Amino acid sequence: SKTKKIAVISGDGIGPEVVAEAIKVMKRSEEMFGLSFEFEHGLFGGIAIDEKGTPLPQETLDMCQKADAVLLGAVGGPKWDNNPQATRPETGLLGIRKALNLYANIRPAFIFDCLKEASTLKPEVLEGTDLLVVRELTGGIYFGDKFRRETEQGQEAVDTCVYNVMEIERIARQAFEIARTRSKKVASVDKANVLETSRLWRETVVRVAADYPDVELEHVLVDNCAMQLLRRPSSFDVIVTENMFGDIISDEAAMLTGSIGMLSSASLGDGAFGLYEPVHGSAPDIAGKGIANPIATIMSVALMYRLTFGYHEAADCIDNAVKEVLDAGHRTADIAVDKSKAISTTAMGELILAAM
Amino acid sequence: SKTKKIAVISGDGIGPEVVAEAIKVMKRSEEMFGLSFEFEHGLFGGIAIDEKGTPLPQETLDMCQKADAVLLGAVGGPKWDNNPQATRPETGLLGIRKALNLYANIRPAFIFDCLKEASTLKPEVLEGTDLLVVRELTGGIYFGDKFRRETEQGQEAVDTCVYNVMEIERIARQAFEIARTRSKKVASVDKANVLETSRLWRETVVRVAADYPDVELEHVLVDNCAMQLLRRPSSFDVIVTENMFGDIISDEAAMLTGSIGMLSSASLGDGAFGLYEPVHGSAPDIAGKGIANPIATIMSVALMYRLTFGYHEAADCIDNAVKEVLDAGHRTADIAVDKSKAISTTAMGELILAAM
Ligand SMILES: CC(C)[C@H](C(=O)O)[C@@H](O)C(=O)O
Ligand SMILES: CC(C)[C@H](C(=O)O)[C@@H](O)C(=O)O
Repeated sequence: SKTKKIAVISGDGIGPEVVAEAIKVMKRSEEMFGLSFEFEHGLFGGIAIDEKGTPLPQETLDMCQKADAVLLGAVGGPKWDNNPQATRPETGLLGIRKALNLYANIRPAFIFDCLKEASTLKPEVLEGTDLLVVRELTGGIYFGDKFRRETEQGQEAVDTCVYNVMEIERIARQAFEIARTRSKKVASVDKANVLETSRLWRETVVRVAADYPDVELEHVLVDNCAMQLLRRPSSFDVIVTENMFGDIISDEAAMLTGSIGMLSSASLGDGAFGLYEPVHGSAPDIAGKGIANPIATIMSVALMYRLTFGYHEAADCIDNAVKEVLDAGHRTADIAVDKSKAISTTAMGELILAAM
Repeated sequence: SKTKKIAVISGDGIGPEVVAEAIKVMKRSEEMFGLSFEFEHGLFGGIAIDEKGTPLPQETLDMCQKADAVLLGAVGGPKWDNNPQATRPETGLLGIRKALNLYANIRPAFIFDCLKEASTLKPEVLEGTDLLVVRELTGGIYFGDKFRRETEQGQEAVDTCVYNVMEIERIARQAFEIARTRSKKVASVDKANVLETSRLWRETVVRVAADYPDVELEHVLVDNCAMQLLRRPSSFDVIVTENMFGDIISDEAAMLTGSIGMLSSASLGDGAFGLYEPVHGSAPDIAGKGIANPIATIMSVALMYRLTFGYHEAADCIDNAVKEVLDAGHRTADIAVDKSKAISTTAMGELILAAM
């Protein structure tokens, strides 16, 4: 069937508000481009803890597994921050990644012209920055054995970082494939001078690289990468790295663009299926006020159209509409220079719909 | 005896050049302040691999163990980059840290007035930035079991991250003690929403904090820290974190000041003994040219005077001399705006001696 099933898990905080605008955009594109979506909603994160006692209820997972793509808002909030591990929103996030085998987290970080000034970096340094972090998302220290034990020196905690060749190879291939559609440069980030997993990482990336002679590969130690992102952000194209380093490096990269409230991400597995979400969090401080910026979530839809469905025309339409609205000077509070002129979440959504 | 033994391990690349200037400064301060040093030199890093077959020869370690403080230049270079782990310069670095129980790496990151423009951050964001990273240096994933194994899924690599309460407690105390001498704020960086070691870290830091009610404590997740350093660098005072996170965060912090070629670090254990070194590396590309900037190494001496020997007057004298020379406009190539006016390593050293 041509109808695509979208599992919608809006989550907590501003999640439901921004997802609502993204769905309006999807509905508009159904009419405009003859697409057809079926939306199903599921509980996820804090709200699922409150209503079902677990951040990732089985029915939500089932729903996602049957869907063609997942649209996620955001999860978490102070209410659940002190919960034991099993009933924390993050546990749901890690659980869904693993259960859906979403091993490749794709996070483009680029500059919105109208937001250049929002970065804390000098504009001349930022100029031309357009990078994409490919983060391994289902392995490493996130998912290895973790436990406490008593020793003669007192209590001790252990986390285990594990990677096998297959896990590294598939994420490396993703990175090289994506690099081919961009500027054909991959920076592989590791700590091969210290970690055994990084040495296996590097060997494997080097081996995979042989299949992509048209793509330039550099190895960057993670500490050096944290520096080079500040020094020469525009020199990076695709950055590929393991889960923990990717968590840190992708957030640094997003922040330096100054556009963090506007960035989207995709989490992919082997097929076309993917989970799409804004990079920003649930922003509990502004939840329910109707002032959140829906653009990152709306642009997550464009990413979904491109990466999961191949709806390039509809994706372009969304991206262009966003650009037009921003160029016309419309701003939500988070990106407004003059806060008194800031528009609401729904007003921003309406303007984007109109511009489509 | 009043004579202090200094173990000098200048290492590779520009190490010997910058250390030579630092020793001249120490000798000048002997005369000026009635101090007395005995210098012993040892092989370390790449040069030790070449001459002794190991990056940390036993006699070098013995020499360091008998000394009151160690002055280190820098280690490493392309020549040894593809060596097996046992004969790599970094292995010497990790070995000396562990053998001398230097569990606390202290890295101040601040702005040199004359170098404000060198940062890629906007001056108004950087304004007032003066932070210090306390990095745990002898535990965590750096020193846990690491190995490969064959599995049904193919080869697999494993690194183990381990922390016990004692290790966390002592580094936390260092951080709180240092914060007391500064702006009385500690940001403890962890990934407590994912890692068991981070959860033990956070519990322990909270417990230690009870002994320092005058110091304000915040917990920052490592990904968020990578962002906040860009967003609000001047809001940080002391940042305390575990080994791997500290490696990344301290380099990011150093780079954002724009003064990375000028920053010093101390690695301390339980007593007054410490190892002092510039934050910059061995810079093989400019080694032997006599153009390296000796300031970070010279200021490492000032740090040694303060933290190991309590020679505050002599330390001030060095810091002030450096400031005077910089204020007068003298620059080595790395920090010169007009490269044609750059002065040599020894010329910079002479000017600082003269200014003392
Ligand atoms: C909430 C947390 C578990 C998660 C992660 O560390 O992966 C988040 O920081 C992210 O990057 O999506
Ligand atoms: C060379 C390397 C092993 C070392 C580390 O990671 O500790 C270095 O990056 C540092 O920060 O001193």
